[in-house]
Amino acid sequence: MAGNTLGLLFTVTSFGESHGPAIGCVVDGCPPGLLLDAADIQAELDRRKPGTSRFVTQRREPDAVEILSGVYEGRTTGTPIALLIRNTDQRSRDYSKIADVFRPGHADYAYWHKYGVRDPRGGGRASARETAVRVAAGAIAKKWLKERYGIVIRGHMTQLGEKRIPFTDWDAVPENPFFAADRDAVPELEAYVDTIRKSLDSVGARIRVVADNVPVGWGEPVYDRLDADIAYAMMSINAVKGVEIGAGFDAVAQRGSVHGDELTLAGFASNHAGGVTGGISTGQPIEVSIAIKPTPSIATPRRSIDAAGNEVTMETHGRHDPCVGIRATPIAEAMLALVLMDHALRHRAQCADVRVETPRIPGRIR
Amino acid sequence: MAGNTLGLLFTVTSFGESHGPAIGCVVDGCPPGLLLDAADIQAELDRRKPGTSRFVTQRREPDAVEILSGVYEGRTTGTPIALLIRNTDQRSRDYSKIADVFRPGHADYAYWHKYGVRDPRGGGRASARETAVRVAAGAIAKKWLKERYGIVIRGHMTQLGEKRIPFTDWDAVPENPFFAADRDAVPELEAYVDTIRKSLDSVGARIRVVADNVPVGWGEPVYDRLDADIAYAMMSINAVKGVEIGAGFDAVAQRGSVHGDELTLAGFASNHAGGVTGGISTGQPIEVSIAIKPTPSIATPRRSIDAAGNEVTMETHGRHDPCVGIRATPIAEAMLALVLMDHALRHRAQCADVRVETPRIPGRIR
Amino acid sequence: MAGNTLGLLFTVTSFGESHGPAIGCVVDGCPPGLLLDAADIQAELDRRKPGTSRFVTQRREPDAVEILSGVYEGRTTGTPIALLIRNTDQRSRDYSKIADVFRPGHADYAYWHKYGVRDPRGGGRASARETAVRVAAGAIAKKWLKERYGIVIRGHMTQLGEKRIPFTDWDAVPENPFFAADRDAVPELEAYVDTIRKSLDSVGARIRVVADNVPVGWGEPVYDRLDADIAYAMMSINAVKGVEIGAGFDAVAQRGSVHGDELTLAGFASNHAGGVTGGISTGQPIEVSIAIKPTPSIATPRRSIDAAGNEVTMETHGRHDPCVGIRATPIAEAMLALVLMDHALRHRAQCADVRVETPRIPGRIR
Amino acid sequence: MAGNTLGLLFTVTSFGESHGPAIGCVVDGCPPGLLLDAADIQAELDRRKPGTSRFVTQRREPDAVEILSGVYEGRTTGTPIALLIRNTDQRSRDYSKIADVFRPGHADYAYWHKYGVRDPRGGGRASARETAVRVAAGAIAKKWLKERYGIVIRGHMTQLGEKRIPFTDWDAVPENPFFAADRDAVPELEAYVDTIRKSLDSVGARIRVVADNVPVGWGEPVYDRLDADIAYAMMSINAVKGVEIGAGFDAVAQRGSVHGDELTLAGFASNHAGGVTGGISTGQPIEVSIAIKPTPSIATPRRSIDAAGNEVTMETHGRHDPCVGIRATPIAEAMLALVLMDHALRHRAQCADVRVETPRIPGRIR
Repeated sequence: MAGNTLGLLFTVTSFGESHGPAIGCVVDGCPPGLLLDAADIQAELDRRKPGTSRFVTQRREPDAVEILSGVYEGRTTGTPIALLIRNTDQRSRDYSKIADVFRPGHADYAYWHKYGVRDPRGGGRASARETAVRVAAGAIAKKWLKERYGIVIRGHMTQLGEKRIPFTDWDAVPENPFFAADRDAVPELEAYVDTIRKSLDSVGARIRVVADNVPVGWGEPVYDRLDADIAYAMMSINAVKGVEIGAGFDAVAQRGSVHGDELTLAGFASNHAGGVTGGISTGQPIEVSIAIKPTPSIATPRRSIDAAGNEVTMETHGRHDPCVGIRATPIAEAMLALVLMDHALRHRAQCADVRVETPRIPGRIR
Repeated sequence: MAGNTLGLLFTVTSFGESHGPAIGCVVDGCPPGLLLDAADIQAELDRRKPGTSRFVTQRREPDAVEILSGVYEGRTTGTPIALLIRNTDQRSRDYSKIADVFRPGHADYAYWHKYGVRDPRGGGRASARETAVRVAAGAIAKKWLKERYGIVIRGHMTQLGEKRIPFTDWDAVPENPFFAADRDAVPELEAYVDTIRKSLDSVGARIRVVADNVPVGWGEPVYDRLDADIAYAMMSINAVKGVEIGAGFDAVAQRGSVHGDELTLAGFASNHAGGVTGGISTGQPIEVSIAIKPTPSIATPRRSIDAAGNEVTMETHGRHDPCVGIRATPIAEAMLALVLMDHALRHRAQCADVRVETPRIPGRIR
Repeated sequence: MAGNTLGLLFTVTSFGESHGPAIGCVVDGCPPGLLLDAADIQAELDRRKPGTSRFVTQRREPDAVEILSGVYEGRTTGTPIALLIRNTDQRSRDYSKIADVFRPGHADYAYWHKYGVRDPRGGGRASARETAVRVAAGAIAKKWLKERYGIVIRGHMTQLGEKRIPFTDWDAVPENPFFAADRDAVPELEAYVDTIRKSLDSVGARIRVVADNVPVGWGEPVYDRLDADIAYAMMSINAVKGVEIGAGFDAVAQRGSVHGDELTLAGFASNHAGGVTGGISTGQPIEVSIAIKPTPSIATPRRSIDAAGNEVTMETHGRHDPCVGIRATPIAEAMLALVLMDHALRHRAQCADVRVETPRIPGRIR
Repeated sequence: MAGNTLGLLFTVTSFGESHGPAIGCVVDGCPPGLLLDAADIQAELDRRKPGTSRFVTQRREPDAVEILSGVYEGRTTGTPIALLIRNTDQRSRDYSKIADVFRPGHADYAYWHKYGVRDPRGGGRASARETAVRVAAGAIAKKWLKERYGIVIRGHMTQLGEKRIPFTDWDAVPENPFFAADRDAVPELEAYVDTIRKSLDSVGARIRVVADNVPVGWGEPVYDRLDADIAYAMMSINAVKGVEIGAGFDAVAQRGSVHGDELTLAGFASNHAGGVTGGISTGQPIEVSIAIKPTPSIATPRRSIDAAGNEVTMETHGRHDPCVGIRATPIAEAMLALVLMDHALRHRAQCADVRVETPRIPGRIR
């Protein structure tokens, strides 16, 4: 397959271009019997939707999802669930100007050489618009993981440009457009983004995602490790340049006597592993951090070339996020949910008969 | 599959436990006609082999590889290449003591809950010994990429514990046991590791890997992005906790006007992207960094529990690397080679007919 | 994945229930640059469409296909091609009567035990309506194979119930509703089907499909043999109970001195192999036959049980094909096209560099 | 992958050439805890082994299997099980004579064009010797299916050339070299094969395989149907040209009022479906028949061409089976076991929570 299907047992096959008729996906492998309707999915889509604050792109997309199959009388049937989102705000503008120019930091040049043809309208397939599909599919996984295992997946922004954002309270996250888990940080972030935008520039961000209540024993031991699949899923999000599990790059300077999480009957004494050892979940929270690059579409003039072999200067105007990381938290949550659900099913397949009751210790000392 | 096969078109199916009869793999999908003999593979295995300096484990494994199939009269035939490495230095010792204890920082606890049974001898399947298989398979990919496309894949250590190691010269790398690309740094590293070991502790490391001459256009645009597959492959290496492509986590604080690599007819003006945009190679060098955690097997006493539900104190003696990162460079190179070869074949499948000649600019301004 | 994706490199991911909002699929892996519009696909769909003669179901479905993605300015872009067919003729009838009864010869009983829930409307996912999706996807493969390699895929009915139908002329096939390749046989077939229908019964059929101009060398040598993948694809069509390649079951009583096709410089002297030896195409026509069972939905009373554990008698009235094989020819052609296209891409991946020019002999002696 | 891996969750990755150092496979996905030693596998290999009667090839291969991994203290651990069979009877003969000639009925011509290189020794990868690997892997599946679900998989020959062999008694099968289920037929078969061999010719065979006690609900509804995967697996066996499930090609002339199996509370009234409807098992016995072509290696002179473009006459002497179908029964059983085990695991993954207790009727009326 040409890279548009994610997962082994719980699969998402994505389609669609930014300015084509529609985007969507086929979700295959969802167990039968899950209560599901479009509102469950819409709720997650609305968290990612553009145009909700002045800090994100002003494109007006309702991102209304339609379930085309796989649900009967309000429950999943075990057959494929197709999700359809029509594109509505496709401005009829002239793309011929950028059709032959390779925008710096974008995939234009690489696409052109790979395919010999490319849909230049809004970035085509390379547009971050495709991440709506991930959020929609992730909503199904999130719901199933919650109902079947009590798993809760949450994320928040930990850094915006050079501004670090402390973790104070999960409840703060939905109250601000940055997904910051600290109410006091919000005014400064607002002012910061306004400054960036006025300087015709953009910045990156860092997002942290946590999954609580993941059972011990999910994941594979060599290649399809739980952390390897998470790294793959996160790095597949547009603009992501780095992934960490647990201590991440801080582990380089740690001593073994610090990093290795001690076990006590009251629980693990720390979680430097980020909930995964040897590729398999430990029962501790899965903790993941990702680095998101600054939006490449900026109004500052930059050098490039065109398809005819000329050097050009270009600047990008229009409706762009000053920081694509601002809307990335629901996407990262969705990707973690998709990976966990796939491994939940894989674990059931191979280890359904395994019964190891004791000692199962708490994920963290309480 | 239970996570022991890597790749879609160029696949490696790995098997073996640390102290079982053998480890090995089946490499499927290698194009016919490649000159290949065991010496090609042995050369890479010898770079990773234990017991070569006082800074690594003293286990004496010749790691002699045998090619069981897929080669006829010195050339690959297009059929599966099976590689076999017999385990020879399996000390007949008593494992009953650790068989029921979960070592902190190891996969013992997770394995026990996943499988309900585990091979405790030397870590069983979770042992870093499995990485010899990756190096062996990677040697085939490296050779093919070199001969077919002129691709050169090299790595070096950039940090050992808190010691940062500058890049000075590729030629320095094979001259020291740390794979440091700076001759002057070596004495300090030697002293540092001796200190760590005497303190009964261990440290992490950071490795950088670079692939030169990768053609523009390899990779997929959404899920199986080249960088996503690289992240997956790297995170699947034992002890890796973080992966970066190009600027990595530094991208968070960068401005868009800095990060996006400008294009000129003389070449790209920078490589913050690390050779990948939109999941597809740009023709620039692929640049990857990984974080490796400190060895969990240390002689410092640590708290844990056993399978009977008792709290215990344990310390690990025996033949262990004070820093597993020291031997990780050839492994990381191998994983990059395996991913690139898979995507080379995928690209040929879909885009064999694409002919886009100009303008193809140099990977970097010279 | 839960069995709704076909292929490795050229994949079709299918979705939809007979009486849900829509059916459709995502076709991934189509090379860029193919001229494609909805009319190309519609032409094949119209060949399979219900309601076109009195010998098939009278359900009125226009089966109008919409291309949602992957095509830009009339050409494929290399990204996923999503196809959507809305269901329009869903009679609002009462399904509660059959919802709890297991129809003999149908998948009702098996679905009910597998999923614990099932969509009873028109057979749900088990309906032959899903085969429209295969025909739509197959149209893309057919077109690419034709343009790129000159491959022509055609089928015809060779038996209807006990009536054997000789092969006389390919041109006769589109002229009659049975896809018979013999004009003289048609009146008898018409009378035969009328008789079957009046007796409230149904019959099976046998279909033969041939692909001409398939290059030598496609297929894999052990498991994913070209003939194995064809057998899989054909047996996956609703109601198919048998598959033959070349001589098929006649090979049992053949002598080796007859069966093995001799090679001469003028071409192969026979084609008992059906175009495949050792799993790999020989350059001869690929010849496949399939057996299709009689429609299980008949008006003759039959014994069954219901979900409450009662024995019942049931008869099925409504719009059903007296022989599902009558519309099966375009489906079988589509499945052969899908398998061939997948193997075309696989072959390019691994063997793109192989150049073996002589002696390449004609597929058959002319 | 290049076609050497079978299965999705329970996978077999096969390697090896007829006259190379070894053949073998990696079996991945076996649940932990299964009692397994080499003798379990050897017992099945001995059923297929050459040289056991005058009716099969006289090649003397002990086919001794070694388990290299995945078993600890007599039980599977959930990690990959590697199986190794060294080739011992590789006659050092001169292959240069046939190295450039394409034997009729063999894969020589197709391989040569596909790969541009081929291992001519004993057929290389195309040799039926590879089927020993399938039998070895199948032995693990058979054992697990038996212990976990009580599934019994048995096969017998139903036709040898034009001689039909009635089914009388399963107990007769191991008592004769033909796997005939009828003691009285054996003398005639012996005489028949002697005649064929003396005439320097060969014949085909027909094999039937049955799996009893397969639970209702295994399989997928659209592409990876249980019967589609069985067709794939069977057609992947060397020399197989046809596959039937249940009534097979007889279904063509059946009426719907006969073919559709009625359900009663005492059980299904017939099994024309062969245990599968809509791609999913019904709880009835799975019944499969396959057609095996006559051995192409015969001593009768036949026409062919060589790689230099000359027409030649060739005859094959040496150690060949007069009917490759004679040893095919254990292979067909193994393939059915491998498919069933894969689907057992797939079913657990998706439908582990489904609980549908009544009415579950017997597979057949007793």
